[in-house]
Amino acid sequence: MASKLIAIVAGVGPGTGAAVALKFAATYPVVLLARNPDNYESLAKDINQSGGKAVGISTDISDYKSVNNAVDTIKNEFGSGVGAAAAIFNASGRFQRKPFLELSEDDFASGLDVSGKGGFLFSQATLPLLLKGVEQKSPHPPSLIFTGATASIKGSAQMSSFASGKWALRALSQSLAREFGPKGVHVSHVIIDGVIDIPRTREWLKDLGPEAKLSADGIANDYWHLHTQPVTNFTWEIDLRPAIEKW
Amino acid sequence: MASKLIAIVAGVGPGTGAAVALKFAATYPVVLLARNPDNYESLAKDINQSGGKAVGISTDISDYKSVNNAVDTIKNEFGSGVGAAAAIFNASGRFQRKPFLELSEDDFASGLDVSGKGGFLFSQATLPLLLKGVEQKSPHPPSLIFTGATASIKGSAQMSSFASGKWALRALSQSLAREFGPKGVHVSHVIIDGVIDIPRTREWLKDLGPEAKLSADGIANDYWHLHTQPVTNFTWEIDLRPAIEKW
Amino acid sequence: MASKLIAIVAGVGPGTGAAVALKFAATYPVVLLARNPDNYESLAKDINQSGGKAVGISTDISDYKSVNNAVDTIKNEFGSGVGAAAAIFNASGRFQRKPFLELSEDDFASGLDVSGKGGFLFSQATLPLLLKGVEQKSPHPPSLIFTGATASIKGSAQMSSFASGKWALRALSQSLAREFGPKGVHVSHVIIDGVIDIPRTREWLKDLGPEAKLSADGIANDYWHLHTQPVTNFTWEIDLRPAIEKW
Amino acid sequence: MASKLIAIVAGVGPGTGAAVALKFAATYPVVLLARNPDNYESLAKDINQSGGKAVGISTDISDYKSVNNAVDTIKNEFGSGVGAAAAIFNASGRFQRKPFLELSEDDFASGLDVSGKGGFLFSQATLPLLLKGVEQKSPHPPSLIFTGATASIKGSAQMSSFASGKWALRALSQSLAREFGPKGVHVSHVIIDGVIDIPRTREWLKDLGPEAKLSADGIANDYWHLHTQPVTNFTWEIDLRPAIEKW
Repeated sequence: MASKLIAIVAGVGPGTGAAVALKFAATYPVVLLARNPDNYESLAKDINQSGGKAVGISTDISDYKSVNNAVDTIKNEFGSGVGAAAAIFNASGRFQRKPFLELSEDDFASGLDVSGKGGFLFSQATLPLLLKGVEQKSPHPPSLIFTGATASIKGSAQMSSFASGKWALRALSQSLAREFGPKGVHVSHVIIDGVIDIPRTREWLKDLGPEAKLSADGIANDYWHLHTQPVTNFTWEIDLRPAIEKW
Repeated sequence: MASKLIAIVAGVGPGTGAAVALKFAATYPVVLLARNPDNYESLAKDINQSGGKAVGISTDISDYKSVNNAVDTIKNEFGSGVGAAAAIFNASGRFQRKPFLELSEDDFASGLDVSGKGGFLFSQATLPLLLKGVEQKSPHPPSLIFTGATASIKGSAQMSSFASGKWALRALSQSLAREFGPKGVHVSHVIIDGVIDIPRTREWLKDLGPEAKLSADGIANDYWHLHTQPVTNFTWEIDLRPAIEKW
Repeated sequence: MASKLIAIVAGVGPGTGAAVALKFAATYPVVLLARNPDNYESLAKDINQSGGKAVGISTDISDYKSVNNAVDTIKNEFGSGVGAAAAIFNASGRFQRKPFLELSEDDFASGLDVSGKGGFLFSQATLPLLLKGVEQKSPHPPSLIFTGATASIKGSAQMSSFASGKWALRALSQSLAREFGPKGVHVSHVIIDGVIDIPRTREWLKDLGPEAKLSADGIANDYWHLHTQPVTNFTWEIDLRPAIEKW
Repeated sequence: MASKLIAIVAGVGPGTGAAVALKFAATYPVVLLARNPDNYESLAKDINQSGGKAVGISTDISDYKSVNNAVDTIKNEFGSGVGAAAAIFNASGRFQRKPFLELSEDDFASGLDVSGKGGFLFSQATLPLLLKGVEQKSPHPPSLIFTGATASIKGSAQMSSFASGKWALRALSQSLAREFGPKGVHVSHVIIDGVIDIPRTREWLKDLGPEAKLSADGIANDYWHLHTQPVTNFTWEIDLRPAIEKW
């Protein structure tokens, strides 16, 4: 692992975040961001013990100071001129299905704070590092990848808070793809249209069999594939779902 | 004007807001919401002097207390059991085209605060009144109409703040349409894809002739048409643009 | 009814076609096209007896010669310089839900022949008349309106033949809107997302009550509203569904 | 190359078709379909000489008998019980930008014949082989991949014939994805949003530099990646464009 470029993953936790971090850790030192250190500590330990390098930073992705502090920590750790090969935004507001008139202001804000403001803060913090990755001739075009959901393209009944945040994030990703693609940064958005197979969802959809849920490792492979696309062949958006999913 | 049902317009100002308010004032008493009273005072006066009824309330649509206060004022004015025939959300965050890395946190928030949080607060404030409008047998199904823009469906370069808010608002409107349609409230979203002909834009696109800009009165006619659709024929979304617009 | 401009409706039958024809017949002489004269004869009689003017022409909309013959008949009837104020394409291929591997070549073609080729032939036949309508100062911008369906934007399982035709038709309408809008012709596409209340569907959805189906007269009102939009405020697309429809 | 499963590519020619055929030929015997044998002969020779296996069959993809004959030839060559691991539809109608009223009936049909009818015939011919591939435990889920274009999602002025066919094809692919995904066949649609770098386009966009055009080998890598997605993580659609492309 000779690369001096790093990968930054926000929203590490059991599932997509951890799988993506592991995948990218095979090539790059990884920075793991999550509010709760429980979400990255054992993962960081595993990566560090198996020959990779991982640094966990407790970060509230929707808080300006907290995100700035994470960037400072990154620069202390990797040098002020550090470039990034990848930045992955996997944080998500609270998933909730609730009658609209029963939503509290805080319920509604949870979607917009993480996906809207958080997506903005993460992008502003990482794009300068990704642009440095371009200057530093990253072997694969530096990638900024956002995790979306079914609710990124569908506003279902009783889902306005989650959907509003996810649509805002998709808008951000499209706008950034158009602005930063020509500068060499590859911005993508991934629509995860189904349940991911993680400890928390073990009992879900059980009667449909083992193929009813998305594999987190499979998702990580797709993120890595997006990362390896050459500058002539950028994908902005892919969707992902189990073969048996109704959609 | 025998109706006891009211219409509420947020984001009154020269242009769509005023034209829509005037249109609905021909049938309903109208409540005009804007942060700055300059935006509704002369309009309210005109409506009141020509036989209609208009009440202006200074309101910051993205502030919980201010919106609650507006609802209190409405109930004081029209009775605590007042129902609404229409609520129109025409407020909008700051339109700005700016390199992403030059956006301040406040720049970005301006889109999400008004279109995201503001859309939520306005909907929570007015839906109970619209549901009362259903109970009170509004001759036309009570309508909740949101004003969108080109940026509601396209995230252009350097437009992330405006687009994020507008996509969030569109998600909200679609989610509400699916939740409240079956309850008899007609929720719509209107994509205004072009420049509206108002005093501020008088000099814009002049070389293209008088037909290059949308007529605000025309927009108001479309809002009214949406309002008059029967419960069997609800439109969620329409787009609107000058015939000569490139799109 | 002083107008010398005519309206042409293809796909007249019980339902949308007849309702639209009646609506436009209040203002314009109407030409009624259907393959089977049974579909327009009593309607034409009704219109002619109540002071309007209607001419029915048996036409296979997916056949070049048949469509050309219809144009000749129109010119014989109304003069070779006749202009059109509206042309409405309401023909539709066979609606079928069938396992893909059981579709015959003819099954699949039924969608593309009517919606694809038929849409093309109708547009080529009527656009010259609509452009004459522009020259002849039609009070409302001449309109070319296409009837779409849920399947215009969703390719469901076992629905490929109907969906392929409807997507092709929507592409045609968008392309024409962009080409002919600047020439003053208003091209629109209407997504009918639900069951229309016509004799054939009388027993459908009965348990959901009288509001579960779209009103054909309501649809006709929307087509008329689209027709009356000024040149500064053209809508390309609207969707229409009963309030209680799941979508 | 122990696999007895085959890959079938329709629309082989210099560019995507050849690159995809070469990529899949590293793992599967490939069948190359094109109307003109000049388009596959040297490619087949190259594959056969370098240790792979390729069979070219002159086929008019929009002709029922010709497609049936191709299937017979495949079965003669590989056995009547042969299964397919992949079928790739890369054929395309004539790309043309032409004023709508100047299109001949044949011009317009060129899009629908190849993309509409051709897509249907190819799918009906290959899906039974792909379903056999599922039975025969293809290591990767058998894949049916369709090549789309910018015009698959945008109906531009003067582009109705190409767009109508491409929208019809996209509808087909979505409908098939929903019907055959649960049966284990992975159906995908790829939006190629830009100019591909092939001999015919050598002089295009030259002033924008070597990165202004899509790499056909890069596209082939993406098709292969789609093919290797596990049954829990199917992508229906991706878009592909050069980083510097305006979109």
